[in-house]
Amino acid sequence: MLNIKELNTSDASFWQEMQDLLAWESVSDDAVFNTVNGILKDVRTRGDEAVVEYTNRFDRMSAGSMAELEIPAARLQEALNKITPEQRSALQQAADRIKAYAERQKMESWSYTEADGTLLGQQVTALDRVGLYVPGGKAAYPSSVLMNAVPAKVAGVPELIMVVPTPANEVNELVLAAAAISNVDRVFAIGGAQAVAALAYGTQTVPQVDKIVGPGNIYVATAKRMVYGAVGIDMIAGPSEILVVCDGKTNPDWIAMDLFSQAEHDEDAQSILVCPDADFIAQVKASINRLVEEMPRKEIISTSLQGRGALILAKDMDEAVQVANYIAPEHLELSVENPREVAKQIRHAGAIFMGRYTAEALGDYCAGPNHVLPTSRTARFSSPLGVYDFQKRSSLIDCSAAGASELGKIASILAHGEGLTAHARSAEYRIKG
Amino acid sequence: MLNIKELNTSDASFWQEMQDLLAWESVSDDAVFNTVNGILKDVRTRGDEAVVEYTNRFDRMSAGSMAELEIPAARLQEALNKITPEQRSALQQAADRIKAYAERQKMESWSYTEADGTLLGQQVTALDRVGLYVPGGKAAYPSSVLMNAVPAKVAGVPELIMVVPTPANEVNELVLAAAAISNVDRVFAIGGAQAVAALAYGTQTVPQVDKIVGPGNIYVATAKRMVYGAVGIDMIAGPSEILVVCDGKTNPDWIAMDLFSQAEHDEDAQSILVCPDADFIAQVKASINRLVEEMPRKEIISTSLQGRGALILAKDMDEAVQVANYIAPEHLELSVENPREVAKQIRHAGAIFMGRYTAEALGDYCAGPNHVLPTSRTARFSSPLGVYDFQKRSSLIDCSAAGASELGKIASILAHGEGLTAHARSAEYRIKG
Repeated sequence: MLNIKELNTSDASFWQEMQDLLAWESVSDDAVFNTVNGILKDVRTRGDEAVVEYTNRFDRMSAGSMAELEIPAARLQEALNKITPEQRSALQQAADRIKAYAERQKMESWSYTEADGTLLGQQVTALDRVGLYVPGGKAAYPSSVLMNAVPAKVAGVPELIMVVPTPANEVNELVLAAAAISNVDRVFAIGGAQAVAALAYGTQTVPQVDKIVGPGNIYVATAKRMVYGAVGIDMIAGPSEILVVCDGKTNPDWIAMDLFSQAEHDEDAQSILVCPDADFIAQVKASINRLVEEMPRKEIISTSLQGRGALILAKDMDEAVQVANYIAPEHLELSVENPREVAKQIRHAGAIFMGRYTAEALGDYCAGPNHVLPTSRTARFSSPLGVYDFQKRSSLIDCSAAGASELGKIASILAHGEGLTAHARSAEYRIKG
Repeated sequence: MLNIKELNTSDASFWQEMQDLLAWESVSDDAVFNTVNGILKDVRTRGDEAVVEYTNRFDRMSAGSMAELEIPAARLQEALNKITPEQRSALQQAADRIKAYAERQKMESWSYTEADGTLLGQQVTALDRVGLYVPGGKAAYPSSVLMNAVPAKVAGVPELIMVVPTPANEVNELVLAAAAISNVDRVFAIGGAQAVAALAYGTQTVPQVDKIVGPGNIYVATAKRMVYGAVGIDMIAGPSEILVVCDGKTNPDWIAMDLFSQAEHDEDAQSILVCPDADFIAQVKASINRLVEEMPRKEIISTSLQGRGALILAKDMDEAVQVANYIAPEHLELSVENPREVAKQIRHAGAIFMGRYTAEALGDYCAGPNHVLPTSRTARFSSPLGVYDFQKRSSLIDCSAAGASELGKIASILAHGEGLTAHARSAEYRIKG
């Protein structure tokens, strides 16, 4: 019997217990910081030479030069031919659906002209060059390649540089195939802080990018945080989470498996169920204890559910929604009768999976929306990865002579109010005599 | 005669000189870090008590409680009545124009339904509560209140909490008036890292916010960087910059004053002119040397222009555009004959001011677009502050039974390929038998 925390919204201590349950701070370990800092400086100074050295050391490789670490396009195509036809078709279908959804997110330039001829607007452009970090080894996820690369290409990013470590020359064919399908431009077999540094500062061989996206271990995350400013980065992700809101009428096995699908990621992942039906919660518990035995990742699932999971009894659905808005979960399943009505009451969530058929796993791979989502309650202020993360805006202002004259008067008053005489004079020059 | 750097794109060393000219790294001073770290921890633990203590000490105040540090709404209205009618009208007109532009930026929810009944989309919501940092003392800019508060309110943020230090009880009436005009909900007379901590963690009196925006000194910037994750933040701004691209046919006095309007901000501000006409550059130099004598901020302007400014001779306009795209300036003035054509070639800029009449100062105050813009070449990957910074998106997925069955097959193949059995099983449950 797994020992999973059970909470009741009626308890006086409930909200304090929720706060404790959700508490998560990414540790800024001094040792990690110093290691990463050293690698960043070294790669910035010595370029290719340093990257090759770190790669040979950390990834047990024996590359003689950076050129040897580039994986040519032909090799990606080879991977596409090596995987099974079913896998290839599944990757292609997923990519097509991710692309179709991403197309809807694309921002367009706009402008409007005022009566006096002054034009105002916003010009949207794609980033010039983006770096995509893909973890190697066990956590190598081809779906992650698609989810990061496809929106970048839909945005119109001309050059997409992927890095993926290949420890002891071990490559993941599905990852390379996903890179081929999503039109990644160049791939280097490097990883860790050294790969982040190469992308952020550029080396003789690796071109400098404008933004780095993609998940990685603590060294990669620390490196990304440190190069932020020199380049853009996507979010710093915490452990993955799911909150299932259920009215008690879904098959309890389905709910148990949906909770597992999050818990199996890693020991720190968080799976929570909130439900107004105590009997149903008991049924889900029974399903959990029966089904966990069949899971290859039983140990991880058990540790995650017992350490960070919770089964919450709410008074009613309104209270369940209140809990959901407090948690602001990365993944929110609304396994209820009227999910679209309930969704309207959700103020904070990375992605909302509506109805009993919409398992989170469908969204993880192929529904279309991105699986890179804000974690650790950051959905209160941030959004899923999207095409918009690979585009940026420039304000457009084109004043007519008449417009500049009128605006100049306002600007002059405000600039003098702020004690900025040159601002005022610059505006006053444009006032008609 | 000011000694301003002159560069020529034809020189072999030009691009290396550009790199040196633009180099800017915000110093992470250990002393500042430690001070801020201590204040954050103290406010997080002791709340109001700590905030009051730091405020009394750093701002030379003698408040007995946090409640005494709240500036009531009536006081904001009083400020609105104290300022001159011209100032009030200028503030109101600026606010109206900022609002009109911001309305165009508002993101809306969208969704589409596929043939099998599956719905996909994105739900847009406003942030619940936002904190606005406003510097006190000399750098107190009412325009900054408008530029941060108006888009937040257009986004629909229900609660906007402003903090502004009032050293030795000195308040800036224009700042309070701007707060009244832009419907700020509550104002506290606190500043520094202690104000950032109060907003990020909440105290007994100051409500916890979801995002903190607004400029501040190095302590404020460091505090914002450190609380990022617990709350969202806007960009970390570097020194302000302007790049003027001129074809040589604008009044050189105008160009000189436009360069001053940036240089007068502070010694680290950067003003650069690029022009294909050597004679015109000489004329601008003459204007600079004549006009700087009339400037109350002559010292700051001289230091800024001599330390970080540059006059660049380009071969032609195409090369001038190339320089602009390399710099990715915060403010770009296209003081040329055909500015809209040239603007189409600009890939990176915070704001583009087109034509000889469009002085940057007009955009700083009242043209409509935001004056909070990406600095230090970050326009390569980031955008002006906008309504979108006060909204966030949640993905929507509602699979029909038929849709879930088809997607379940794809997800199952990919999940097995990644070794995630619970993901696969969760998807497979939804495949029709």
